[in-house]
Amino acid sequence: MAQNTAATGLQRLRNHMAGHGLQVCVISLPIHIGYLCGYFPPANRFASLLVTPSEALLLAPASGAPAPSADLAVLTYEDYSIARTVHLAADSLAAFARALAGLCLAAPRLGWEPSFLPAVYADRLRTVLNPIQSEDVSPLLEALRTVKAPAEVQAIERAVAATDDIFAALERSIHAGCSELDVYSMALATVARAAAGPAVLDGDFVSGPRTEEIGGPPTPRILQPGDLLIVDVYPCLAGYWADTTRTFSIGKPSQQTVDRHGVLEEALAAGRRAIGPGLPTRELYAVVKGVIDRAGFGACFPHHAGHCVGVTPSEDPRLIPGSDAVLEEGMVITLEPGIYLAGWGGMRLEDNFLVTAEGCRSLSHYPLKLVEI
Amino acid sequence: MAQNTAATGLQRLRNHMAGHGLQVCVISLPIHIGYLCGYFPPANRFASLLVTPSEALLLAPASGAPAPSADLAVLTYEDYSIARTVHLAADSLAAFARALAGLCLAAPRLGWEPSFLPAVYADRLRTVLNPIQSEDVSPLLEALRTVKAPAEVQAIERAVAATDDIFAALERSIHAGCSELDVYSMALATVARAAAGPAVLDGDFVSGPRTEEIGGPPTPRILQPGDLLIVDVYPCLAGYWADTTRTFSIGKPSQQTVDRHGVLEEALAAGRRAIGPGLPTRELYAVVKGVIDRAGFGACFPHHAGHCVGVTPSEDPRLIPGSDAVLEEGMVITLEPGIYLAGWGGMRLEDNFLVTAEGCRSLSHYPLKLVEI
Repeated sequence: MAQNTAATGLQRLRNHMAGHGLQVCVISLPIHIGYLCGYFPPANRFASLLVTPSEALLLAPASGAPAPSADLAVLTYEDYSIARTVHLAADSLAAFARALAGLCLAAPRLGWEPSFLPAVYADRLRTVLNPIQSEDVSPLLEALRTVKAPAEVQAIERAVAATDDIFAALERSIHAGCSELDVYSMALATVARAAAGPAVLDGDFVSGPRTEEIGGPPTPRILQPGDLLIVDVYPCLAGYWADTTRTFSIGKPSQQTVDRHGVLEEALAAGRRAIGPGLPTRELYAVVKGVIDRAGFGACFPHHAGHCVGVTPSEDPRLIPGSDAVLEEGMVITLEPGIYLAGWGGMRLEDNFLVTAEGCRSLSHYPLKLVEI
Repeated sequence: MAQNTAATGLQRLRNHMAGHGLQVCVISLPIHIGYLCGYFPPANRFASLLVTPSEALLLAPASGAPAPSADLAVLTYEDYSIARTVHLAADSLAAFARALAGLCLAAPRLGWEPSFLPAVYADRLRTVLNPIQSEDVSPLLEALRTVKAPAEVQAIERAVAATDDIFAALERSIHAGCSELDVYSMALATVARAAAGPAVLDGDFVSGPRTEEIGGPPTPRILQPGDLLIVDVYPCLAGYWADTTRTFSIGKPSQQTVDRHGVLEEALAAGRRAIGPGLPTRELYAVVKGVIDRAGFGACFPHHAGHCVGVTPSEDPRLIPGSDAVLEEGMVITLEPGIYLAGWGGMRLEDNFLVTAEGCRSLSHYPLKLVEI
């Protein structure tokens, strides 16, 4: 189904509800709550979003809950007190039951997320609403999420800009003698500046022989002259993720290394030219893989050629031979060709693209180069 | 109930199972899985730990799953493939059903976590096991967690040592002109070095007028001469958290500031002398609060006087007037007196203590001082 790229997630969900006669949706997965109302619940706290055709009610812990607005009613439960010992499970369950009862719905058609709503809340949901029919809307929400609304594209672009900043900072500052942990800490500091607050960053920081392993967390390993260094960073700003990669050469790279990186540049460029609405993702994989194959490195590229990003750093559709998905306008995808040779090392190059009516637009602006430092 | 401080969480759970005739426990809360087997599941992936009197079986996503051992069988489900689109919810549910069927239990007495196991898995649990009786073991696990086993104390001490390192690094490096974000980034880099890997750190980084607000995330605000700066850091190393605080003075503090910090030092020392098995936590609150009251700042101390730490940075029992809990040997608690005055600013001092048979042992070693920089 081609989606309306201008519609927000909430509008898309309500369109589905209207089409399927759902009177209420009870949303449980934290990233789906964030996708629909912009509030991403903290870990280890229960939250729920109740959506009807005309209203949205967020149930959230009091600490850090958003202010109510014209579009969003907010009901909170106390999660901090010095007057009593707080019992989060019992208190959040009681608040959930109150929120459901406040809907004043009898035997509705219900959309919910049985793979994510814990059992006690599900039992209460069944008791209070007594739904005549229910639908698991998690797969629907996953599908709706694939096509980004304009505000989501902007959020992802801010995260991609943070990755541009990371690579620029590393190009200025790292050198032989730094550790992988130093590289990681510089990346964290850059993301904190971009977020003007706490940094949320995951990624791969592997150097020297570790580059053969494709990825991994940073270690105390010290960068040596002649090393390759793969920096694959996925920062999250305001709930939205980017995911880009550059490979660094510590000192002047050999011609062989330059040539192999050239294969990655060519594979990414070929993928970029192919991107457009209607292209099966398995074909886009084949385009990227084909360039690597023809250069003789097909057996050295064991992973996907890319994936989508959004409220997670890696989500469907994926650029893999085993996918049946098709690109649509408004998807944001990564392309990430790589080459990994035992005894030599590994390199990867990754950029993020918005699928447009005409083809695509690159969201990252840092040069697609092997970075010599 | 006084617990055996030498026993691991898994041994304590099995003791309870034996006493209550439970044949199997199905554990769902990620921090409880980590508490019992040392593996902390990633966000957005289903995991479960099945515990019988003689065996423990972990169901986990294949990426990052631990190796099986003599004490822990491991069953994984595929969460990455290029050959097919992975359906995490369906695949993890099927694996969960296989794990349950493999127990070969008919109508057992079951312990489980209905506040955390999602509905579809709960329905499968009921269908496959058909339990004759079931008990919510989440409150039990919360209670068992309060008294730390020796390996847990060591893990917390490593996290506390990272907070010592943070304060020492800040004392060396920060100055007027740094931003709160710079302070935060230095703390992150210190935690990454301590962890020899990715940094998990939360905390309060507030300076100048923001110190009146008790806490909050770091912002781009620049430290000014004469500012106070509250650094309340809670790093997590290998699943275990510490939580300590120091207040910094940017430039030479006034005598009034020194005197007020002296009240915090006295309040913390009084609390420390009082700590011991059998002491009601509300009385420990009263000891700390009493010192602040007598100095005339009782109205300026609105929060708890401390709490426990472990697989979360803040957990029961809490040092609040509304608690009925009693200290036990093996608990690890923070003491955190604070003073916050509108128009002046705020200060807090916090250290972590292991409750011992004789009283307590301080886990942090950085001086309990107002840090002048």
